[in-house]
Amino acid sequence: MEHKLDEFIRHALDAQPISGTSLIISLYGDALSHRGGEIWLGSLSALLEALGFGDRFVRTSVFRLQKEGWLDVEKMGRRSYYRLTEQGMRQFRHAESKIYLSEQPAWDGKWDLLLLENAEKAERARLKKELGWLGFGQIANNLMAAPTHAQTDVAALLGELNAGEQVIYFRADYPYNRSEQTLRQMVAYCWSLSEVAAYYHEFIVSFRPLMMLLREADGSVLTPKRCFQIKLLLIHFFRRVVLKDPLLPDALLPAQWEGQIARNLCINLYQQVDRAATEYVSELAETTIGALPAPGAGYYRRFGGLARTHTTF
Amino acid sequence: MEHKLDEFIRHALDAQPISGTSLIISLYGDALSHRGGEIWLGSLSALLEALGFGDRFVRTSVFRLQKEGWLDVEKMGRRSYYRLTEQGMRQFRHAESKIYLSEQPAWDGKWDLLLLENAEKAERARLKKELGWLGFGQIANNLMAAPTHAQTDVAALLGELNAGEQVIYFRADYPYNRSEQTLRQMVAYCWSLSEVAAYYHEFIVSFRPLMMLLREADGSVLTPKRCFQIKLLLIHFFRRVVLKDPLLPDALLPAQWEGQIARNLCINLYQQVDRAATEYVSELAETTIGALPAPGAGYYRRFGGLARTHTTF
Repeated sequence: MEHKLDEFIRHALDAQPISGTSLIISLYGDALSHRGGEIWLGSLSALLEALGFGDRFVRTSVFRLQKEGWLDVEKMGRRSYYRLTEQGMRQFRHAESKIYLSEQPAWDGKWDLLLLENAEKAERARLKKELGWLGFGQIANNLMAAPTHAQTDVAALLGELNAGEQVIYFRADYPYNRSEQTLRQMVAYCWSLSEVAAYYHEFIVSFRPLMMLLREADGSVLTPKRCFQIKLLLIHFFRRVVLKDPLLPDALLPAQWEGQIARNLCINLYQQVDRAATEYVSELAETTIGALPAPGAGYYRRFGGLARTHTTF
Repeated sequence: MEHKLDEFIRHALDAQPISGTSLIISLYGDALSHRGGEIWLGSLSALLEALGFGDRFVRTSVFRLQKEGWLDVEKMGRRSYYRLTEQGMRQFRHAESKIYLSEQPAWDGKWDLLLLENAEKAERARLKKELGWLGFGQIANNLMAAPTHAQTDVAALLGELNAGEQVIYFRADYPYNRSEQTLRQMVAYCWSLSEVAAYYHEFIVSFRPLMMLLREADGSVLTPKRCFQIKLLLIHFFRRVVLKDPLLPDALLPAQWEGQIARNLCINLYQQVDRAATEYVSELAETTIGALPAPGAGYYRRFGGLARTHTTF
């Protein structure tokens, strides 16, 4: 009979269609990007095989990722090795800064306000969309806003978006406390927080049963292979939700914010499987220079270092 | 034959219809508000008579101003004395802070931004109108903005407007220099600067000829009476334009701003007639306690004290 953990894994895989490229991105991001970012195609197939992804499926996916600029290929003899590109690595680092947070980002109460009134209609639509991906919400007709993130250089951003001339950029603080309530309502509405909360809720409902299963599991059941599979699916589904989240600061969120609950759940599960999962990848992965290097320091800073105690070798 | 100065005065009076209440407000504001704010109705009539405003016209006007809360009446025997009310005085002080500036207000580059998105439609319209009077411009659909004035307490203002709950108030600075040009264009458009400039232009065209006339006039022509009439009309027309001006800081205005040219012209003319005009009012005005008091210190701070040298007694 199938073990309950395998049942859980199979159920998670079946619950919604999983794109091969997206899953392989999750694998590179979570397990390889801090370990050189390169792997033999054969190892990749071996890692994914048990999850039901065949050799051909993996080949097709990495080929597509290569065309999209995420991966470079290197051939040695008859073997192909796929390595993250510079551009791919940059995108991973950016996504990672959101995925592996331990809590909502700190906030000094300031806002970045971008007035698009002067941009042409099509240009305005483009900017709204791009800024939306970057966590900006539309708080009035042509006014995009985001709580200021220390990391975000808005001026540089506007340069990258080719929007320096049409956009008026204000950095604002928010000195008038009486409208606090009004502001929260507006934030919930403009950032579609109930939609984001629903995605998190779905994640929580899917992965909460795993807590119980892991609590019941003894060492013989919690094999490195299962740990790897659990960790990959955990991060894959968490990533897909987090990247839809504007990651607003605590002060602007409801008191019981599903995002933080989901994050805490993810951290708890990650802690329990990370060490064995990492060992499993070490075991199976081959690179052009032999074994995978040990994870770099950045790896252990994930989730604010919370996952560290369990993952030190 | 009519002297050229009288001709100028008559022409200024005829060029556009003058409301009696508005002219009397100008007189109280300019000549009386720093000298106790009270005058006998008979003196008021005497001051205005030579400008072609009859006794009955003056009576009707002060009666209306009393009903509107600007003036209080006190009777002693058969004589009526009209005194500025508390409320009237407050409004005068507010208007005065705009009229008798020597230059565009200093600015630290900050903005007050008021987001009206949450207000109901009718309420929004009311607030836009009220804020417009206070120098705010609409820079996006439901976003009112004004360069921060050190004197303006926006939070208190929102309280007075009963708008604390619906309005979101940001104080912003403007750190991104590339959109400077865009900002100026927006300001010119949103504050209808070309319209304001046209009003100032009209004022300049009307009063510039007076410079020449005053230069040619010797002491015997420049009588206290004529000086009084000139000063009253000068401030009356200047006031009516200034109160339409959002009084934006220099940095946001065109390099050759008609507002500053008109202001400089007004200051130059004011300097030449102020002393004799003030003497004339002293001569004619009677109050419940006898002669008008000498002007208070605030009077000599007008136009940044620029008018002082000529007006010290």
